[in-house]
Amino acid sequence: MLGIFDSGLGGLTALRELRRLLPEEDFIYFGDTGRVPYGTRSHEAIIKYALQDMRFLMSHNVNAVLVACGTVSSTALDALRSQFSIPIIGVVDAAVYAAAAATKNGVVGVIGTGATISAGAFARSMAAAAPSVKLISTACPLFVPLVENGFIDRDNEVTKLVAESYLSDIRKGGADTLILGCTHFPIISPIIESVLPNVTLINSGAEAAAELAKIAWNSGLLSHGTGHTEFYVSDEPQGFSHVAAVFLGKDISSETQKIDIDKY
Amino acid sequence: MLGIFDSGLGGLTALRELRRLLPEEDFIYFGDTGRVPYGTRSHEAIIKYALQDMRFLMSHNVNAVLVACGTVSSTALDALRSQFSIPIIGVVDAAVYAAAAATKNGVVGVIGTGATISAGAFARSMAAAAPSVKLISTACPLFVPLVENGFIDRDNEVTKLVAESYLSDIRKGGADTLILGCTHFPIISPIIESVLPNVTLINSGAEAAAELAKIAWNSGLLSHGTGHTEFYVSDEPQGFSHVAAVFLGKDISSETQKIDIDKY
Repeated sequence: MLGIFDSGLGGLTALRELRRLLPEEDFIYFGDTGRVPYGTRSHEAIIKYALQDMRFLMSHNVNAVLVACGTVSSTALDALRSQFSIPIIGVVDAAVYAAAAATKNGVVGVIGTGATISAGAFARSMAAAAPSVKLISTACPLFVPLVENGFIDRDNEVTKLVAESYLSDIRKGGADTLILGCTHFPIISPIIESVLPNVTLINSGAEAAAELAKIAWNSGLLSHGTGHTEFYVSDEPQGFSHVAAVFLGKDISSETQKIDIDKY
Repeated sequence: MLGIFDSGLGGLTALRELRRLLPEEDFIYFGDTGRVPYGTRSHEAIIKYALQDMRFLMSHNVNAVLVACGTVSSTALDALRSQFSIPIIGVVDAAVYAAAAATKNGVVGVIGTGATISAGAFARSMAAAAPSVKLISTACPLFVPLVENGFIDRDNEVTKLVAESYLSDIRKGGADTLILGCTHFPIISPIIESVLPNVTLINSGAEAAAELAKIAWNSGLLSHGTGHTEFYVSDEPQGFSHVAAVFLGKDISSETQKIDIDKY
């Protein structure tokens, strides 16, 4: 069984990609809906929450974990890896490799929550992987509430206006490739594409899913199960149907169980 | 000593009003910044959090409490009053009385978070206080992230566009009075006024502060202290300086202490 956790439900986009790549594998998904969003929390809080999320997945005997949360991937991956010996894949490195391979002019943009961008993990990873690439980083803190409140239509004037404001430095800088450093952002990729035409978008959740699938396959960590997924959250599952449907393409609220994450 | 709690820092606007009304009183403020926002949580989670917030204030021997959070005031006040015998003032009733007194044409609007509006507490309170008043209720879930991300200037095109969309039913309905049912909303009252000219805005936090001051005075609950305020939060105080300055007019991050609210 493979585990995935996120601060909320955005990681369902990465789960969807994993299920497509590994249709016979069993998965367990945990969304920390009682404490979302992580992007505005302190470094100490993010590490505490990430360790609890990880301990919950470990209690279900997972063989490897995808950290779908850009904030945790940027700020707490070392803390997790120092305490757990199974493979733990974040959304930073896989997206950086894909962007470095995709860019033709050597100018790449990355967008994420405030905590993700100020942590600088994408910049450090790019400096290590492709030091000649120029990376332009921009925090887009309003994108998550816009997506969660349904401001997602291609023609939504509010989200277009916010995107034009947030993405202007990346456009002026001439980036030909943009890393979506938060699993919420692919939902509004049509709007991002309209603001940045001819820019290649890198979906960090999908890239991480592909990396986890490869590692699990190569390391013999697949369980060859029945293609079943267990869903857990930390607040009541009712009321998630709309958001879950946006991310996963179907309503999973009736099959989702609530846990007390403070016990882990 | 009087206590105030909120899901985050919005309640500082109510604290400011209380300090103006009672300059010699001592106050204790708790902002649950590690679990903000409450407006998207389940009913069960909101009650659990509100009871913990209240127990923390009781551990400091407060004589009365102002619940500055519109979500808690709308969904959990009865649960709090059933467990604690001191006066507990929410932001609903005082604002409803003020709006019923202010309206001339008998049509009042109320805006709040999703949880506040769907709880229906403003509608029930108005039906009891002034049954002839027609109340138009609208959830404005994006206003809180817009305020917290600094989209607050009078000319901000994004917030104006969101406000025009959210407030169109209230405008069409002909309301002459609007209750701001969330302590974040007074920060963008110039934008709300530009969308709804000639509408009287009722600041629910300020109305609740006036009610608490009156009750504390009449019931002999004032401690005649030194005008001191203690600030507590549930996440790291660093990084709050900008938001606190927006709400309180000064940076309080250096004098704010972090507590572990899960222990209460």
